[in-house]
Amino acid sequence: MVKPADFAATQVRPARAWRDGRASDASREAPEEAAIGLLYDSAPYVVVMGTPADVEDLAVGFTVPEGVAAFADIQRVSVSAADEGLLADVLLAPGAGEALMGRRRRTLEARSSCGLCGVETLKEAMRTVTTVGPGPQIAHAAIQRALATLETGQTLGQATRATHAAAWCAPDGAVTLVREDVGRHNALDKVVGAALRAGLDPAAAFIVVTSRCSYEMVEKTAAAGVSILAAISAPTALAIRKAEAAGMTLIALARADGHMVFAGPERIVEA
Amino acid sequence: MVKPADFAATQVRPARAWRDGRASDASREAPEEAAIGLLYDSAPYVVVMGTPADVEDLAVGFTVPEGVAAFADIQRVSVSAADEGLLADVLLAPGAGEALMGRRRRTLEARSSCGLCGVETLKEAMRTVTTVGPGPQIAHAAIQRALATLETGQTLGQATRATHAAAWCAPDGAVTLVREDVGRHNALDKVVGAALRAGLDPAAAFIVVTSRCSYEMVEKTAAAGVSILAAISAPTALAIRKAEAAGMTLIALARADGHMVFAGPERIVEA
Repeated sequence: MVKPADFAATQVRPARAWRDGRASDASREAPEEAAIGLLYDSAPYVVVMGTPADVEDLAVGFTVPEGVAAFADIQRVSVSAADEGLLADVLLAPGAGEALMGRRRRTLEARSSCGLCGVETLKEAMRTVTTVGPGPQIAHAAIQRALATLETGQTLGQATRATHAAAWCAPDGAVTLVREDVGRHNALDKVVGAALRAGLDPAAAFIVVTSRCSYEMVEKTAAAGVSILAAISAPTALAIRKAEAAGMTLIALARADGHMVFAGPERIVEA
Repeated sequence: MVKPADFAATQVRPARAWRDGRASDASREAPEEAAIGLLYDSAPYVVVMGTPADVEDLAVGFTVPEGVAAFADIQRVSVSAADEGLLADVLLAPGAGEALMGRRRRTLEARSSCGLCGVETLKEAMRTVTTVGPGPQIAHAAIQRALATLETGQTLGQATRATHAAAWCAPDGAVTLVREDVGRHNALDKVVGAALRAGLDPAAAFIVVTSRCSYEMVEKTAAAGVSILAAISAPTALAIRKAEAAGMTLIALARADGHMVFAGPERIVEA
C-alpha cells in the first residue's frame, strides 16, 4: 500500500478531465484520509479515519465527550507518525488510566458480538442522549452571521471543496474556532477538543456544522455540553427526536437566505 | 426514546422557518435513520444505522462483499421490527454458519482493543484492497448518461434532498438499479445486494454514487467485483491510492458538464 506523503492534509493528484465533450490533463487537490490510532497510556483504544491535522484536538474532543476520561485527567497528547498512519497517545493522570481499563475489560467481557461501529445491540445504538443545560439564547441573525463568517475559516474546504467544517460560535454569532476534516464526526470532535483546550465555556456557545445532521452529530454536541446545533444540510428524523430528548435546539438547512428550527425554538429570539 | 413511526423511510416534521428576515411555521420531510441489526442464523453480528427500506438488499450487499458468506450460502433474509429498530436475520446454508462463527471466535480472541469501526490496528485499517478484473470499457458519454438518468430513480432524494444514492449501470450508461440511504455506505451495499439478488454480472457493470468518495467506497466496490466507480463529489487521496492498488477506474466530480478520471483511465474510451 502506498503511504500518504508525510501525512499532509491534502495531496495534489493528476487526473484526466472530461468537460464539455473534450478530454485534457488536469490536477486536483484531494483531502488526505489517514488512519489515526488513539491510545491511552500507550494502550490502543480505537482507530478513526480522518484528516491528519489538529490531531491533538481530535484526541481531546473524542476522549472527553465520549466519557473516556475527564479533561482534567488528560496530561498530554503525543502525536507520532507510524508506518500506516498516525498515533495519538493520550497520557492520563495516575488512576484515570486504571479506571478506564477496568471499564474497558468489563465492556469486552460483556460483548457477544463486535460491531462495525462499536454498538452491540439495537438498544445500545438507541442509548439515551445526554440532557443539555439551558445554554444561551441566540437571534436568527446570529446564526446567519456565523454562517457568513464560517467559510473564511475553511482553509481545507476552499482548497479541496471536499471537507466538512465545524465552528464554535459565541451567542452573537462570532466564530471563535473552526476545525475541518474529511469526516463530519471528526470535524465536530476536533472543534470540541480545541474549545476544551482553549478553556471555552460550552454553556455559552453554539456549534455550526457544514454537513448533514445525523443523530451522532446531536449526541456528540449534547455530550460536549452545547445546547444549540446548527447544520447547513438536512437533519434525519432520528436526529430531530434525539435533539428533543436532549432538550437541545436543532437548526438545519442553514443557508445564506435562512434556516429552519426543528427542535427547541425557545432558545431562538425572533426579534 | 421516541420510536420511529412504523419505520417508514421518511417522517414529516414541523419546523419554524426563518427566511429573508421573516419567521413562519413550516414542515419538512426528513429521512428516517434507524438501527438495523444484522444477524446470522439468529446470532447478532453487527448494527448499522440506515434508512429502513430495502433491508434485504442491505443484508445481502453487506454479507457477500465483506466475505461473511457467499451469495450461494444465503438461504433467506427475514426482516422484523423490534422495539428499537429493525432486525435482518440471514439464514445460511448448513455448514456456512459454523464456519462464520469459527472465524468470528478467532477474530474476537485476537483483538486486544475494540474499535469504533471494527478496525483494530492501523495495519488492519490499511488492509490490502481486493484486486478487480478487467471489467468493461466505457465511454465518457456513458458516465454522463448514467448521471442524467440517476436522478429520476432517487425517490427518497427528491422527497428529502438529504439521502445518498448508488446506481448499478450497464456499460452504455443505462441505469439498471438505484438504491438510497441516509448513509452512503449503506446505499452502496444496498445496490450491490440488489444486483446480486437479481443475478447481475459485476464484471459487466459500473457503479455511480451521489456522494463523496472516501476509501471504503472504493474497497466496497472492489469487493463487489465491480471495476469502475464514479462519484458525484470529490475523492480523498487515500481513495485514489486504494483504486490504483485495486486496479480500478475511479471517476469523481461527475457533474452535468463533465467529470474527472483519477485512476485507471484505460477503461475510459475517449472517442
